Amino acid sequence: MIQPPPAAVGQRLAEVDTPALVLDLDAFESNLAALNRAVAGRVRVRAHAKTHKCPEIARRQIAAGAVGVCCQKVSEAEALVEGGVRDVLVSNEIVGAPKIARLAELSRRARIGVCVDNIENLKQLKACAAPLDVYIELEVGMGRCGIAPGEPALALAREIAGNLRFAGLHAYQGRAQHVRSMAERKASIERAAQAVASTKALLKTDGIDCPIVTGAGSGTFMFEVESGAWDEIQPGSYVFMDADYARNEWAAPLPRFRHALFVLSTVMSRPRPDVAIVDAGLKASSVDSGMPTVWGKSLNYTKASDEHGWIEGAPLPALGEKLLLVPGHCDPTINLYDWYVVCRDGIVVDLWPIDARGALT
Amino acid sequence: MIQPPPAAVGQRLAEVDTPALVLDLDAFESNLAALNRAVAGRVRVRAHAKTHKCPEIARRQIAAGAVGVCCQKVSEAEALVEGGVRDVLVSNEIVGAPKIARLAELSRRARIGVCVDNIENLKQLKACAAPLDVYIELEVGMGRCGIAPGEPALALAREIAGNLRFAGLHAYQGRAQHVRSMAERKASIERAAQAVASTKALLKTDGIDCPIVTGAGSGTFMFEVESGAWDEIQPGSYVFMDADYARNEWAAPLPRFRHALFVLSTVMSRPRPDVAIVDAGLKASSVDSGMPTVWGKSLNYTKASDEHGWIEGAPLPALGEKLLLVPGHCDPTINLYDWYVVCRDGIVVDLWPIDARGALT
Repeated sequence: MIQPPPAAVGQRLAEVDTPALVLDLDAFESNLAALNRAVAGRVRVRAHAKTHKCPEIARRQIAAGAVGVCCQKVSEAEALVEGGVRDVLVSNEIVGAPKIARLAELSRRARIGVCVDNIENLKQLKACAAPLDVYIELEVGMGRCGIAPGEPALALAREIAGNLRFAGLHAYQGRAQHVRSMAERKASIERAAQAVASTKALLKTDGIDCPIVTGAGSGTFMFEVESGAWDEIQPGSYVFMDADYARNEWAAPLPRFRHALFVLSTVMSRPRPDVAIVDAGLKASSVDSGMPTVWGKSLNYTKASDEHGWIEGAPLPALGEKLLLVPGHCDPTINLYDWYVVCRDGIVVDLWPIDARGALT
Repeated sequence: MIQPPPAAVGQRLAEVDTPALVLDLDAFESNLAALNRAVAGRVRVRAHAKTHKCPEIARRQIAAGAVGVCCQKVSEAEALVEGGVRDVLVSNEIVGAPKIARLAELSRRARIGVCVDNIENLKQLKACAAPLDVYIELEVGMGRCGIAPGEPALALAREIAGNLRFAGLHAYQGRAQHVRSMAERKASIERAAQAVASTKALLKTDGIDCPIVTGAGSGTFMFEVESGAWDEIQPGSYVFMDADYARNEWAAPLPRFRHALFVLSTVMSRPRPDVAIVDAGLKASSVDSGMPTVWGKSLNYTKASDEHGWIEGAPLPALGEKLLLVPGHCDPTINLYDWYVVCRDGIVVDLWPIDARGALT
């Protein structure tokens, strides 16, 4: 059972039922433009759709100049292709015949890329006989997936053949994205750039062309651009700018992004003089990267239980008053909702379904 | 777009696509029976459906003796009533005319209860003219919603009239549920019981009958039963028993519950000798109450990112191997899925839709 939309086009924001996931269209469009201005055509943009899970947003990113999108799950790719996207990179390893068969099926309808970090997995991909773009995922400091740069990556690249096209290197330093200091983030990306450059040089010596180096996130992408080692960047959160990204030191060369995503909540109890309780808890705003912040008020969201949030500060809002919260972490928050309530100037102008919500496989 | 089921009836668990939310039917049935044996008919059971969000499970709890269920949101109540449940207590304050109109609509199809802690909200409930059971929520140590015990609660009870029936007191000490020590949990409930008893006595002196005192959770319910102050208990997590509840000290009078809920995951990368990466991150198993544990293996799930989990220990599983994880916190984990993959003896025997998944309003 998909949840019905909590709003109708033409409603004022104050009339929208809560909790609701609100997208500020002005801020969203401003963020699309800010990315383009910063990047200035120096690299390709492949926006990360794991963040928004929404074909409508993917189409707008592509209309704004992105070459396509990336995502993390085959089921996300299915929702995006179904929604009209024709170039999707699954920026992740896809293991096992059932999932790979689904990738192969998608490759009949769209250009599909996938990452690999292991020879056994590469053999599984060869066995599907479908034309797939394969990127070798390099470990560049995140300590998650990825093969070591240099010789190990070269050995794997040599095995890419047949139905598979070696599309390039995937190099994402995820751990750097939320390091607070600009200088430390930049240093992390410089180290990653060295690993990328040395691997690329090794491939070249071996006569293997490396068409694209792809990677980067919203917290660092201008460092990747300026390093010259990347051909394509994959920012996701930039369209929304969550509370945790806002805690980063943020200055040029990174552009200023605006908060474009909010959880609208209602004060449901005023039990004591020092606290208001809102109807949005951790099932409405993910707390893995900290509590949400309260937008435009000198109030703090201090604690969450499953369906409740504690609001402290002064002046406290009255029973029934509505508050906009800025989620701590946009990606898992969006995954809790079926709809974006799209607003401009405080009026609901559209409802966008989050088609890849819950797309786990 | 609702996600298709990740499994088919008759499949072996090893064939199920991942991540998948797996319900072990033997353990689930054992937990229903264990609760009944412990309570032994001394109080009514009103199981909490906020945990499972599934009418099929609610119907089974009622078949096992529960008088009905409770939930936290009107939209959850809607899904439960649509699924055939005829007695639902929304154990929460419901504020604002639109939501109250939906409660009123539900009251034409089922017995509907709701909590109140504020005179203004009570007036809103009166204005809907529908027959609702109203429970006064007492603050008994949780520091969330609820009116102070004693005179404030009495003053509010006096105002319940007209279309509203005073159904009793709602007293839930949520903060006590995950206190590790049995003795401290018991002491918390004894303090709550005193607040309940004094308020009940005051109501009686005033000539107000208090039909039911309801409350209690899976971590304490036998203390509520033994105190004699509660007529009805509201355990939710007992059907599944998550990793965080398992960290509690757990002994008689509480019965032993079995882990009945798992996230099935697959090893998608073996990047280094000391770590395996699985395809279930924090969008597959909520981390608000800690990481999941690995079932039946001497392995640790040490870190989560959105779509990945880090597995450490020895011997590490091979690429493609499947692991069962016990979620840190069952309620928000279940809210990430559309289906329970119901298994008995390692075979998929049913698929139960999670109809109230994402029911936020």
